[in-house]
Amino acid sequence: MHICEFQEMMKRLYLHRDSERGVKGTYEWLADELQELKAALTEGDKGEIEKEFADVIAWLASLANITGVDLEKAAINKYSDKCPKCHKSPCSCIF
Amino acid sequence: MHICEFQEMMKRLYLHRDSERGVKGTYEWLADELQELKAALTEGDKGEIEKEFADVIAWLASLANITGVDLEKAAINKYSDKCPKCHKSPCSCIF
Repeated sequence: MHICEFQEMMKRLYLHRDSERGVKGTYEWLADELQELKAALTEGDKGEIEKEFADVIAWLASLANITGVDLEKAAINKYSDKCPKCHKSPCSCIF
Repeated sequence: MHICEFQEMMKRLYLHRDSERGVKGTYEWLADELQELKAALTEGDKGEIEKEFADVIAWLASLANITGVDLEKAAINKYSDKCPKCHKSPCSCIF
């Protein structure tokens, strides 16, 4: 599934809810989901970890929908087979 | 671009770095990127907002790579054209 198709699916399912909740509230849900992912990673149950990854990308898509961002275009514009910092693949940045 | 293709691209670019950094460190980077997205949303510059969305999905894909999660499969398994809670499209959950 394309990133944009997933974002469209989230729009069909949740745009009315997401719009009512607004940007700040939706961001907070996304932040909560990231905390739940952390807890699942600590716990170590593979099924739960996968569900929490799904929730994070779902809420990220919801937030993109109500802020008018095309998540796929944004991702490709910044990351297009080269590291955006060192312009190499694989990345050879010195940290 | 498919979600799995984006994840594969992140693997080509960053797997060696992500593996060295480990799950905890990569999660912390992801959490930092979410904070940067919040700051960009507050600031309101569309270009910066798009770049921060790109960073969040990129670091989420990196974290998925080093935890052995297929982000696309996880997303589709949980969200497949119906709300996973009320099983309707659009969602009709009562909050």
